[in-house]
Amino acid sequence: MLHLVLADSELEQVPAEIATHKVIRYLARKRGRKPTELILNSSRHHPAMRKLPQAERRGRPDIAHFALLQALDSPANLVGELRVYVHTRHNRVIRVDPRTRLPRAYERFEGLMEQLFLTGAVPPDNPLLLLEAKTLEQLVQEIAPDRVVAMAERGKRKKLAELFTRADSNVCVVIGGFSHGDFLSPVNRIADELVSLFPQPLTAPLVVSRVLSAYEQAKGIL
Amino acid sequence: MLHLVLADSELEQVPAEIATHKVIRYLARKRGRKPTELILNSSRHHPAMRKLPQAERRGRPDIAHFALLQALDSPANLVGELRVYVHTRHNRVIRVDPRTRLPRAYERFEGLMEQLFLTGAVPPDNPLLLLEAKTLEQLVQEIAPDRVVAMAERGKRKKLAELFTRADSNVCVVIGGFSHGDFLSPVNRIADELVSLFPQPLTAPLVVSRVLSAYEQAKGIL
Repeated sequence: MLHLVLADSELEQVPAEIATHKVIRYLARKRGRKPTELILNSSRHHPAMRKLPQAERRGRPDIAHFALLQALDSPANLVGELRVYVHTRHNRVIRVDPRTRLPRAYERFEGLMEQLFLTGAVPPDNPLLLLEAKTLEQLVQEIAPDRVVAMAERGKRKKLAELFTRADSNVCVVIGGFSHGDFLSPVNRIADELVSLFPQPLTAPLVVSRVLSAYEQAKGIL
Repeated sequence: MLHLVLADSELEQVPAEIATHKVIRYLARKRGRKPTELILNSSRHHPAMRKLPQAERRGRPDIAHFALLQALDSPANLVGELRVYVHTRHNRVIRVDPRTRLPRAYERFEGLMEQLFLTGAVPPDNPLLLLEAKTLEQLVQEIAPDRVVAMAERGKRKKLAELFTRADSNVCVVIGGFSHGDFLSPVNRIADELVSLFPQPLTAPLVVSRVLSAYEQAKGIL
């Protein structure tokens, strides 16, 4: 089994401190939601985000969306060899049922996330996505893998083919769910090794797809 | 060089035959566009699409969006070893400059596509995306690759590692840019071989990522 964790993902509700900004209030009214029920989105909320700490990296639900689609659509997932988790900035963890058919249209994904952050489970009856309060460290302890690899620019350079062996039976790979900067969580302490695949920065959905590709090849799935 | 062609992609403007539907007219007014200037989107235009031939597969700009992001973000592209083309239902071809930084937010991608289908080139000065009238066959002839592989469910099963060799220097891979059914273009005639990677259907962005991963590994890029 491969446990894939998107860590420190920039997926959160609009923080109270910018809830009264006119852009946020306008968009909330349009969606029939309270301002703090919206999912923070740098593409739409940029003017309101200026005063927010670390504004340059926050509000990127698109990263979790694309990464989850790559993971759930993967052959590894189709043969039942994958578990995916999205750990977010405020130590919320989304546990994703492998059978989840995630919406491909961003608007619908956003609606789903709004509902999930409000209610903690979607769909309400027979939930496929569950939201839990948990740190990255707690999540990894709970998974209890044989080996934890974190993908990081500052990690040791490895070839993709060196990432897994056929013998890997319970491995956890941590990938940053953000676009800029470093992990906020203490990955040095959590991971057994930090690995870098390429001399240039790569996007999270791209790293998700390459890690899965490597696992599928090591396990003879693809 | 790897030439990646997303073929028969379901990316098109709203057809004139459904332009007077009230859903389309409402959305066009909201965007300040003529109805036929909108990009057809099954997620939004579903009620209007019923009368359209092959409605069940049309209006999927998200496929081209996700597939292009996977391609442009790939190590193969970052080292200058990739060219990407999007061939669409009505035999339009989008030529994508490898340096293109595509919007990650769907709304912005949609705006870019609206502009591209209207004007044929974006951004207007120093265009990175060009729209040309061309069949898949004409495009592949123009590329003049040494070898053409089409990825198709009905193709011959191959392992991912068998797709390329280190000696491949000018290969073209054709991937369907649609979610249901078969190619509309005559890929049997265009491709030297049809290849299937997995016994179950895979999404276009997923196949794009695996093909690129295989190429990068064959060429020692990753």
